[in-house]
Amino acid sequence: MTAASGPIRPLYAQASGSPIRAMLALAGQEGMISLAGGHPDPALLPADWLRECLLEVASGVQGRSLQYGATEGLPALRAASAELLRQRGLQAQMEEVLITTGSQQAIDLLARVLMEPGAGIAVEPFNYPAALQAFRFAGAQLVQVPADAQGMNVDRLEAVLTAARPKVLYIVPNFANPTGAVMPLARRLRLLELAVRHGVTLVEDDPYGELWFGEPPPPSLAQLNQQAGSPAQVAYTTSYSKVVAPALRLGMLLAPPDIARAIVLAKQAADVHSGSLEQLTLTAMLASGRLAAHLGMLRQAYALKASALAGALHSHCDGLIEFSEPRGGMFVWAQLGSELPLMSTQAWTDFGLKHRVLAVPGAAFSLHNRAQARLRLSFANPSVEDLREGALRLGRGLRSLQA
Amino acid sequence: MTAASGPIRPLYAQASGSPIRAMLALAGQEGMISLAGGHPDPALLPADWLRECLLEVASGVQGRSLQYGATEGLPALRAASAELLRQRGLQAQMEEVLITTGSQQAIDLLARVLMEPGAGIAVEPFNYPAALQAFRFAGAQLVQVPADAQGMNVDRLEAVLTAARPKVLYIVPNFANPTGAVMPLARRLRLLELAVRHGVTLVEDDPYGELWFGEPPPPSLAQLNQQAGSPAQVAYTTSYSKVVAPALRLGMLLAPPDIARAIVLAKQAADVHSGSLEQLTLTAMLASGRLAAHLGMLRQAYALKASALAGALHSHCDGLIEFSEPRGGMFVWAQLGSELPLMSTQAWTDFGLKHRVLAVPGAAFSLHNRAQARLRLSFANPSVEDLREGALRLGRGLRSLQA
Repeated sequence: MTAASGPIRPLYAQASGSPIRAMLALAGQEGMISLAGGHPDPALLPADWLRECLLEVASGVQGRSLQYGATEGLPALRAASAELLRQRGLQAQMEEVLITTGSQQAIDLLARVLMEPGAGIAVEPFNYPAALQAFRFAGAQLVQVPADAQGMNVDRLEAVLTAARPKVLYIVPNFANPTGAVMPLARRLRLLELAVRHGVTLVEDDPYGELWFGEPPPPSLAQLNQQAGSPAQVAYTTSYSKVVAPALRLGMLLAPPDIARAIVLAKQAADVHSGSLEQLTLTAMLASGRLAAHLGMLRQAYALKASALAGALHSHCDGLIEFSEPRGGMFVWAQLGSELPLMSTQAWTDFGLKHRVLAVPGAAFSLHNRAQARLRLSFANPSVEDLREGALRLGRGLRSLQA
Repeated sequence: MTAASGPIRPLYAQASGSPIRAMLALAGQEGMISLAGGHPDPALLPADWLRECLLEVASGVQGRSLQYGATEGLPALRAASAELLRQRGLQAQMEEVLITTGSQQAIDLLARVLMEPGAGIAVEPFNYPAALQAFRFAGAQLVQVPADAQGMNVDRLEAVLTAARPKVLYIVPNFANPTGAVMPLARRLRLLELAVRHGVTLVEDDPYGELWFGEPPPPSLAQLNQQAGSPAQVAYTTSYSKVVAPALRLGMLLAPPDIARAIVLAKQAADVHSGSLEQLTLTAMLASGRLAAHLGMLRQAYALKASALAGALHSHCDGLIEFSEPRGGMFVWAQLGSELPLMSTQAWTDFGLKHRVLAVPGAAFSLHNRAQARLRLSFANPSVEDLREGALRLGRGLRSLQA
């Protein structure tokens, strides 16, 4: 599509669609095994629990419940969300919690209220593509900070902050997408210190923090900041998509008061408020007290899947890829052996069609969409059987690339 | 709030909250009559119909229905929405219709994909405040086009287009908020002609078009443009908020393909997709075939309310205000007599608290929030009895201002 002609801003006219979405369109093909999506396993989505609560909501529907609601969110859901945050170690009062249309909206609105067009945002080399897209659409410049298996490399961060002077830093400290990395406590503390010193606002995105397998991750940046007397500006967002259901499109934001005020103004103009039926349903689900047990079940199920994929990769892809065993979240982040060719996203799609196994190449998560010796393999969606078969096909396919 | 300090962009740090919202916070006071809100009457919201459909949706909930959905919207809802648009005289295929989180999101996303920061958008002197806010947050410059009782003055539009070269024009041709104006057919045709000649993209916002009392408004700009072979760029949005229920937060957009493509990219980064439970419920409601009867009931009920308010204003505010009888929509737009003082929004709030009747002063709809000799009186929400009592109180209050 050419940019100069039509009425569309070049920022949007030249933007490419998500390569992951393009790949997911192939996931439904007969016999295809997809390790590509970041979608929960439908079998693990709480259909019965949600149905019961939805029936309860339905019987209580009155004219009043169909009226416009508050931009900040349904008070009862804000209260239940604040309680959840308190259980995770954060200080949070109902009035401080905002309900958003998924944490995606929190990220998007934060980008809009924080990022002056052209301002810099610091990010790791590999990121959740829809967050990068939100930052790009806000006109932000992506500033790359080196990272390793423990997440963002804070020792090298200071030089970046000094040189590029980004105004905001985006981070997923727990089981990041796509890397799966968990940032250790010492790095978190150092990151907060640098944020204060350089006046950088932190956007902490934590969709996966509750999906730990062995032990929970260290305290969130937001919690550590509160414990230190809140010297840093930290906007913390998390989502109900991974722990309850994506279809509800509900997330929450805990941010300093001036940021929260701006977010409410931005949300008034963006969608007025998030859907009331979804908010009522989620409120009923949380009130039922079943979330903790559901989370326990999810952790076990995903841990089993992670271990099945890791085991099968060790069996079938030995010498072809390297990876760390996932400690939570939904992803294995594979480093491709140096004897394998660097391939474009299109080439990986062709590979997937040929070998009947889809995985997302690293380029999709990189800042400039360049080919990388990386693959993201998601264990969340497929069955254990399909994870094993997927690893087998992947090994066979990768071996054929060596030849 | 000062702008220079904190991390917030001045655009948001300096933005004021909606004066209407501030006023609505007072509407719940004991004994207060509010003609301020643009909210539907809760008694007219289809609680039974929605409850039945929600129960149906609830019993059908499966893991699959709780998964991520398509950004473009639920296919069945897109199909039903296209059918609705066809009933309104538009050519629309399912693939061309996008579901948005209320038409507010359609306006916001259009502003984002069309308006380069600093670019001009042509608007009437009095507008729906949340649309103006979306344009401001996109960095657009508001360019005022004169208007009269028949809406935008297209004879004076050409001079504005030539002088200020706005890229986009925003218009509510049917029962506009706050003016209630309906643009006549000849003006619509002339507007399309000017849009083509000056390369201006039209954003046609039509939330009230179905709420006509005597006879339906002329064909939409989008329809007239299609009939002419689509020489103009027209993005048409309408909402389910006024004809079904605001709480669903669902609207739709029919736009040229390149604009639609950009909107989908923007929505992926904004909220991924609109809530699935709401989409499923609305789909079931539309499939039940009851919308036409519901609309017929709404038209009658609102016509009765409009006539009650107009009659009471003639009785109690004679010589104090002038207005045209509403032909649809939700609003009476009153011109205040010249012997009444120009008052700030705060002064009108104090007036409302004193006389126990709330109305929104014209400043709230104006481009620069300056005092205007105008009041918007909404007849949608109060009972007929309250409309009469409200007009009585308003007359008494206005008379005291004269003294």
